[in-house]
Amino acid sequence: MELIVTCCQLAPVIGDFAGNRARVEAAVAEAAAGGAGVIVLPELALSGYCFDSVEEARALSVPAGWPGFAELAALAPDAVVVLGFAELAATGELFNSAAMLFAGHQVTYRKVHLWDREKEFFLPGSEPAPVVSTPFGRLAMMVCYDLEFPEYTRSVALRGAQLLAVPTNWPLIGRPAGQPAPEVVIAMAAARVNRMAIAVCDRQGIERGQEWNQASTVIGPDGWPLATVDAQGRVRAELNLTGVDDKGLSERNDLFRDRRPELY
Amino acid sequence: MELIVTCCQLAPVIGDFAGNRARVEAAVAEAAAGGAGVIVLPELALSGYCFDSVEEARALSVPAGWPGFAELAALAPDAVVVLGFAELAATGELFNSAAMLFAGHQVTYRKVHLWDREKEFFLPGSEPAPVVSTPFGRLAMMVCYDLEFPEYTRSVALRGAQLLAVPTNWPLIGRPAGQPAPEVVIAMAAARVNRMAIAVCDRQGIERGQEWNQASTVIGPDGWPLATVDAQGRVRAELNLTGVDDKGLSERNDLFRDRRPELY
Repeated sequence: MELIVTCCQLAPVIGDFAGNRARVEAAVAEAAAGGAGVIVLPELALSGYCFDSVEEARALSVPAGWPGFAELAALAPDAVVVLGFAELAATGELFNSAAMLFAGHQVTYRKVHLWDREKEFFLPGSEPAPVVSTPFGRLAMMVCYDLEFPEYTRSVALRGAQLLAVPTNWPLIGRPAGQPAPEVVIAMAAARVNRMAIAVCDRQGIERGQEWNQASTVIGPDGWPLATVDAQGRVRAELNLTGVDDKGLSERNDLFRDRRPELY
Repeated sequence: MELIVTCCQLAPVIGDFAGNRARVEAAVAEAAAGGAGVIVLPELALSGYCFDSVEEARALSVPAGWPGFAELAALAPDAVVVLGFAELAATGELFNSAAMLFAGHQVTYRKVHLWDREKEFFLPGSEPAPVVSTPFGRLAMMVCYDLEFPEYTRSVALRGAQLLAVPTNWPLIGRPAGQPAPEVVIAMAAARVNRMAIAVCDRQGIERGQEWNQASTVIGPDGWPLATVDAQGRVRAELNLTGVDDKGLSERNDLFRDRRPELY
């Protein structure tokens, strides 16, 4: 069965919560109309990224129980939606979080590996990335820099993840001609060594002078990109998750059973 | 300081121990004459790979203390030489091993992740990949399929490896047009997430019908290939290891200190 995965590489505008929300809602509705079963949006899609102060971040944050999430989910009632947002905890602290919305459920995750100035605004999460049984398979989610720790991607695969959704904001970084963004190389390797699909949704738009890799990609469980971003900032891939739970590589090899954790 | 790393992508001939030895010696002498500080040769460079039986593998094996290693090292007295060979243990068992030779020293490693029919001929090693202080920095070595376990590459980096040498025999595998061999993608990611250079020496020549990726590559500590194989089956790269022990990524980030092992 082919699953349509759509990444909506939006251009959030720092400070424009209402506008960002409207753009997220429009993108989700459009992706759902296009048949998407899984829809992934950027990190901090409602707030923007380059905060000037913790006060600014706080003003753009919402609690995990914000009613707008249910309203967003209602725009794609048959899909799983994953998006990043600035989370205001009941204790008043801020987290760089992601929400997974589907069939009346919401799972929230707090990014555990914070990048650079995020540490000024957010606390790191203290719980591992979730692996969630959804109508489209077992989905994990993590956020941006989280993806660059191969122990972490391995851990969700070992817990059964079939597809890993990653809202991200990848600051623009140089690379040799002809090469993909370095984070995409890392994601391709993580997909292949774990036989797990990965859908990364980056962002676009220049924000306070910051540019982005704009490298949203859906990677199949064999590690090869299935689709990259189009001129409209969308990635639309048909993904087949059949067989991803079988980690066999040869008659005598298995990606997971061949591990020698006593030696690492 | 630039370190010249040369991978000699030879074409071992199964059963022709004397000829393989002569080809290894010639390649090492030539690489040393070319200024190489580190010389990497294929997996099972002295024996060939596609054994018909354990008896055949045994007949092509040598003990770790084989005097030919010292004679080989003498051909490149200022270099570090890493090559794979079939090791006959004192107990009579066989291992798919690699030797690192330099300055009168030899370190031997037994591959711990065996690929497919290797399991019919070899026992897996029970010791982790070594990290060795050499005149050219701290070198680790592992063999072929070992490289595909990101926990394993991480472990040698955490133990201080600056350059990982990997004798390999990569059976030919299909890939999308324009993509590198999948194992190279895995190596590029491992290099980048660990800030550790990786030199992989594959093999060439068709052996009992088996073809090879012929994808020898030297990857810098930023994860990008520095050089790939030339028409003569050689990779010659100038590598700068300055700064690889500093794992800092930003003012507030560090590849190793940012890890959250309690969550993996």
